Amino acid sequence: MLNIAIYNEFKHEREVEECKAIYPDGIHAVLADFLGKGLDCSVSTFTLDNVNTGLNDEVLSKTDVLLWWGHMAHHMVSDEVAELVYQHVLKGMGAIFLHSAHMSKPFIKLMGTSCTLRWREAGEKELLWVTDPTHPIAHGINDYIELPQEETYGEFFDIPTPDSLVFVGWFRGGNVFRSGCAYRRGMGRVFYFQPGHETHPTYKHPQIQKILLNAVKWAAPMRRIDNLECHWETTAPESEK
Amino acid sequence: MLNIAIYNEFKHEREVEECKAIYPDGIHAVLADFLGKGLDCSVSTFTLDNVNTGLNDEVLSKTDVLLWWGHMAHHMVSDEVAELVYQHVLKGMGAIFLHSAHMSKPFIKLMGTSCTLRWREAGEKELLWVTDPTHPIAHGINDYIELPQEETYGEFFDIPTPDSLVFVGWFRGGNVFRSGCAYRRGMGRVFYFQPGHETHPTYKHPQIQKILLNAVKWAAPMRRIDNLECHWETTAPESEK
Amino acid sequence: MLNIAIYNEFKHEREVEECKAIYPDGIHAVLADFLGKGLDCSVSTFTLDNVNTGLNDEVLSKTDVLLWWGHMAHHMVSDEVAELVYQHVLKGMGAIFLHSAHMSKPFIKLMGTSCTLRWREAGEKELLWVTDPTHPIAHGINDYIELPQEETYGEFFDIPTPDSLVFVGWFRGGNVFRSGCAYRRGMGRVFYFQPGHETHPTYKHPQIQKILLNAVKWAAPMRRIDNLECHWETTAPESEK
Amino acid sequence: MLNIAIYNEFKHEREVEECKAIYPDGIHAVLADFLGKGLDCSVSTFTLDNVNTGLNDEVLSKTDVLLWWGHMAHHMVSDEVAELVYQHVLKGMGAIFLHSAHMSKPFIKLMGTSCTLRWREAGEKELLWVTDPTHPIAHGINDYIELPQEETYGEFFDIPTPDSLVFVGWFRGGNVFRSGCAYRRGMGRVFYFQPGHETHPTYKHPQIQKILLNAVKWAAPMRRIDNLECHWETTAPESEK
Repeated sequence: MLNIAIYNEFKHEREVEECKAIYPDGIHAVLADFLGKGLDCSVSTFTLDNVNTGLNDEVLSKTDVLLWWGHMAHHMVSDEVAELVYQHVLKGMGAIFLHSAHMSKPFIKLMGTSCTLRWREAGEKELLWVTDPTHPIAHGINDYIELPQEETYGEFFDIPTPDSLVFVGWFRGGNVFRSGCAYRRGMGRVFYFQPGHETHPTYKHPQIQKILLNAVKWAAPMRRIDNLECHWETTAPESEK
Repeated sequence: MLNIAIYNEFKHEREVEECKAIYPDGIHAVLADFLGKGLDCSVSTFTLDNVNTGLNDEVLSKTDVLLWWGHMAHHMVSDEVAELVYQHVLKGMGAIFLHSAHMSKPFIKLMGTSCTLRWREAGEKELLWVTDPTHPIAHGINDYIELPQEETYGEFFDIPTPDSLVFVGWFRGGNVFRSGCAYRRGMGRVFYFQPGHETHPTYKHPQIQKILLNAVKWAAPMRRIDNLECHWETTAPESEK
Repeated sequence: MLNIAIYNEFKHEREVEECKAIYPDGIHAVLADFLGKGLDCSVSTFTLDNVNTGLNDEVLSKTDVLLWWGHMAHHMVSDEVAELVYQHVLKGMGAIFLHSAHMSKPFIKLMGTSCTLRWREAGEKELLWVTDPTHPIAHGINDYIELPQEETYGEFFDIPTPDSLVFVGWFRGGNVFRSGCAYRRGMGRVFYFQPGHETHPTYKHPQIQKILLNAVKWAAPMRRIDNLECHWETTAPESEK
Repeated sequence: MLNIAIYNEFKHEREVEECKAIYPDGIHAVLADFLGKGLDCSVSTFTLDNVNTGLNDEVLSKTDVLLWWGHMAHHMVSDEVAELVYQHVLKGMGAIFLHSAHMSKPFIKLMGTSCTLRWREAGEKELLWVTDPTHPIAHGINDYIELPQEETYGEFFDIPTPDSLVFVGWFRGGNVFRSGCAYRRGMGRVFYFQPGHETHPTYKHPQIQKILLNAVKWAAPMRRIDNLECHWETTAPESEK
């Protein structure tokens, strides 16, 4: 059984009518619902109200995969939590960063770049194309997914070269975006996935849910290690030496 | 001084009025002209009329970078010429495959995949976005280039993961495409570049010319080797052994 | 249930006493045995005696993963069989190329490079180090595996940049080698794995068997497609257009 | 003309007789000397004495390529300087991290991983093999370089997948190491190079000097940008929209 943790800021959905209408219980509730139905798992959710106390070392030690959605309050997540998330990914925890989480503290820390991009809230149509159909995250996904409205994200997206570029997004207004990017970091696996603006019902789309179910399975750790410290070797492997 | 060779099929521009109007002397003539002006180089051109006799081992041995444009007559290039081009790339010759050359014999041989893609002759607008601004081929190129009309190419493009993905194309009709892909193969460097349909004046666009000038410089060999054969080593590098 | 096919040349083990002593029924018999025990699968084996007739389109259409061991008789495998294997990988069949299969026809065709390397039959100790501990093929493998004797393979190994470099080999005599290289090609997954010289009992080593079990699971297709042909799209995905 | 800055901790060479004998004026002096002779450049050097005051924003703004050697005093470089170096790399400055600088603050920040490795001070022979002979940093380098004595570094080296793996090291005692790793980060280029322990005269080796001259040329920025901030686009590139 997988232990899944979800962090969702949960500010837009309480403060903005448009978002409240789509996600009355928050984006995390929708994520928890379809993940819980699709996987043999237990799901814990955290919001800005309790992330700095609740998402602690003990919880992360038991977490197989963490999903992260944040936007206007990245700075209100403590540096300690960001550091903890970062360290647990390096030890083997999977992490999936959603939409505007490209600017979250732990994602930037894992990438080592600015993670900036172009953006425009125009409610444009997005077509999400599969560029690596052999990747486990693209399993069961058609050639492309149509999202009637999404926030436009555009290149240049300042990230390191992905280990696998799984999806590229097309936006009606003229932009392209590397929308699905898979990385390994330490013992952990990281996936960035662009769709999911708070004013559109993206996370209710069956194919988007399928992608996230795939991503959780892909990111789940094969093994965890407790210590990646530098270590002195007293003997060489080459024993006859 | 660089030795550049250009192969252009040169059938469309003789047979189709629309192409003749844009490239009266053939696509190769336009390529040769701006490369000759922009680089310290000598340029030889080959067409379907003489490629099977003219693009021989002696010529390729002296060639630093080969550009290749072909479309309807890929099958009329002999297997021997395709093999020679392939072997010379492995020995260090640079190769730039343009537009419909994705289905040319030497490109498929170098990729090891089907190199198929979606396509549609709709004369749609293309926006060509830079996804690796640090790559030498993107030097001096703006965030994106607008091409008023191009043939639409779309994913899934069946190629190996590029060593660098330099450009991604956006097409008005809803498609995205990995339009600029850099590879190393053996001692040689290979660049695939999507724009350049015969019914549009793409190769006259100053930024497209800039990209191809960059690409030739990037693909030019640092060194050439005559023999990559397997070889038996009588002694181990570890000499005390 | 997985359908596994194994091709083993089976010449050394019949002609050379030293090999016969280790693999009396051929390398394929040892591979078939531990794969059969470790996976829910059916295994078919082919040797040089019947590969050109038996490993046909019908058999390959049902094969999920093909393992390939060849050495002195690469040229005796027909071009037709090499082409069939290549085409089936592009359609989704997994393929694992073992040891001297780096020079086999289908592997070279899939790589698009010469696949040459340094080599030396010195029976040296090899230490096989894990360089990507997050890769499914390295699951359950220690930091390194000690092989008391192997044929030495050394860089420069003329292959395309692997999508994942899973293992790097150290050889007593001073050589290093990219010993475990994972690629995607078309819809298929390809793994090259260096250990396995016919004069050493490498395929009886439990950790080597673990790697190959992992590799078969990793290479098994998620989906197969019958046709990767170029296709004309009459309508653009962007339907309002 | 290139502006090169070198940071060298300069503690070992003042405190340890063995190091003082090899590098009486510090590692930075040897680096500055051969870079100054081999390139049209001006070189500034910084040590632990003045790095926290001298390597400021003004200096970094003018620097094309920064070389960094540190070991026992990584923690004494201020977080501010580490942040400045990181930001300037993202804006286009090249950075070359030498030997034990794998644990320096700016390198870890750029990588997003722990950057830990195995190590052993055994003065073992290293053979440094070229695994990407087409890379500009390997230009003019033989198949391998022999270093009579180096500190042993070994896998698993916890770094992100390199964009190019240029060198792999072999060590007498049984270890292998990804010794030359090239990355892009933001607008900048980063190279990690393993050889260079303070108790061995590695930086006096002509082929090592050749590699570092190549690396400086490769890392020098094509362009610098001042601002990679997220930005709002008021109009879509697709103007007919």
